[in-house]
Amino acid sequence: MKNAVIIGLGLIGGSLAKSLRKSSSFEHFIGVDNSATHAKRALELGLVDEILSLDEAIDKSDFIILAVPVDIAQDMAVDILDIISNQTLIDVGSTKDAILNAVKSHSKRNQFVATHPMAGTEFSGPDAAIDDLFKDMAVILCDSENSDIERVKFVEDMYRSLGSNIKYMLGDEHDVSAAYVSHISHISSFALALTVLNKEKNVENITTLASGGFRSTVRLAKSNQDTWEAIFSQNKDNVLAVMDDYIENIILFKHAIKSGNSEVVKTLIRQANEVKKVL
Amino acid sequence: MKNAVIIGLGLIGGSLAKSLRKSSSFEHFIGVDNSATHAKRALELGLVDEILSLDEAIDKSDFIILAVPVDIAQDMAVDILDIISNQTLIDVGSTKDAILNAVKSHSKRNQFVATHPMAGTEFSGPDAAIDDLFKDMAVILCDSENSDIERVKFVEDMYRSLGSNIKYMLGDEHDVSAAYVSHISHISSFALALTVLNKEKNVENITTLASGGFRSTVRLAKSNQDTWEAIFSQNKDNVLAVMDDYIENIILFKHAIKSGNSEVVKTLIRQANEVKKVL
Repeated sequence: MKNAVIIGLGLIGGSLAKSLRKSSSFEHFIGVDNSATHAKRALELGLVDEILSLDEAIDKSDFIILAVPVDIAQDMAVDILDIISNQTLIDVGSTKDAILNAVKSHSKRNQFVATHPMAGTEFSGPDAAIDDLFKDMAVILCDSENSDIERVKFVEDMYRSLGSNIKYMLGDEHDVSAAYVSHISHISSFALALTVLNKEKNVENITTLASGGFRSTVRLAKSNQDTWEAIFSQNKDNVLAVMDDYIENIILFKHAIKSGNSEVVKTLIRQANEVKKVL
Repeated sequence: MKNAVIIGLGLIGGSLAKSLRKSSSFEHFIGVDNSATHAKRALELGLVDEILSLDEAIDKSDFIILAVPVDIAQDMAVDILDIISNQTLIDVGSTKDAILNAVKSHSKRNQFVATHPMAGTEFSGPDAAIDDLFKDMAVILCDSENSDIERVKFVEDMYRSLGSNIKYMLGDEHDVSAAYVSHISHISSFALALTVLNKEKNVENITTLASGGFRSTVRLAKSNQDTWEAIFSQNKDNVLAVMDDYIENIILFKHAIKSGNSEVVKTLIRQANEVKKVL
């Protein structure tokens, strides 16, 4: 395993390049990106050693990391499996059911390992690439029993070299949990930003009044539109179900506050406080 | 100004005691707390030098900081103004209109300075007290033209000694902005915790899947029930108005995702991204 190809040089792809360069035995990093600006910048930042077209890169590759938005990844995974010989392909997307279904009956299905590193920031593009993004974070391997056992072991070792903890889930189970534990956080944060920006035309007021609390809850509202639209769309049913639960809880609060029933409000807060036991 | 009295030895009162001990000219810190456990703990932690009853503490005081939940503060402010001679009283609550109305016609109104340090964490009680909580944070002084100018100056200097930036607002204007920039963040976070905890009975899944994003948006859900119920109740009209805006934005997202209209979803995200320009 000498040549690693990274397709998509954004936050996750770029961070993988940056940190694998230190910890892995890959000797050469090849970047592929449909944005010429991103490709150039990734080269300038030293994230990759060269930029090639997809076909050239795959020809030269030993290991391929697909780090593009999930809607594109779903199609590209099949296209790449079609043309590779013995290479291993992994994806790093935030949804898993769609890509796993897309490659399900492929003759080279066992060369594909589906992974989701539970790591990220609100920033995007090559400049968002961070060393150590994956340290102490979980990486979920999905439906890994359908992948070649040696390839799975290689991928596990690769992530462990970055300090990640490996967990295993079924693809559909992953997508339900991710909707609850990750995707709804982004929607709540986007909606919070819209609410405050629509109201507070006086930008100085926001900056002045923004304590750590608001900064923390609104942080994810800076996240990338292409990445997140694709996730919401691919995980639509689960995301809509969580949104309904979430709206219901907001409305429970609203009625409790409106009715002036302080005991109900306190009980809701106490129930929410239980998150202390988990995090 | 020798003896500072701090009523309420929780996150804010305790942190003020801890940091004023370093930066101010107060020589002696007297604590008052209706929880004997909190009082004892504050003494053990060295936040205050002695614990007294409210009456004893006020007798001995030069300067009084009221750091109790806003519903209690509203009544106590009047009671304290009734019995003080020439001392200065400040509050540090997250709502301002109610307490300012309560003291409005008091003969000693000018001895009261209404302040809101825009600082905090999700923790509570004396053990949550932090050095430097107020450093680089804004402190809003409300309706300060109704307070004695020398006392206002003293309070400003006190907060500046902690590294805070002083801002001025009208009480009612403060409460509208605080609902948007602070109070709704707490509700969105409480509702997020409820949503996830209700669904994910498998606690290990939450811990495993919780990336930095979820941790960040759910952090405030650990906040204290008494503090926050009182704030929502006192700022009810503004909080309900913001909640309606917030629910509307969540529903806009829901419809856009449900209809599969990716351009609308991306536009909403792009509008939310504007928060980058503010924070």
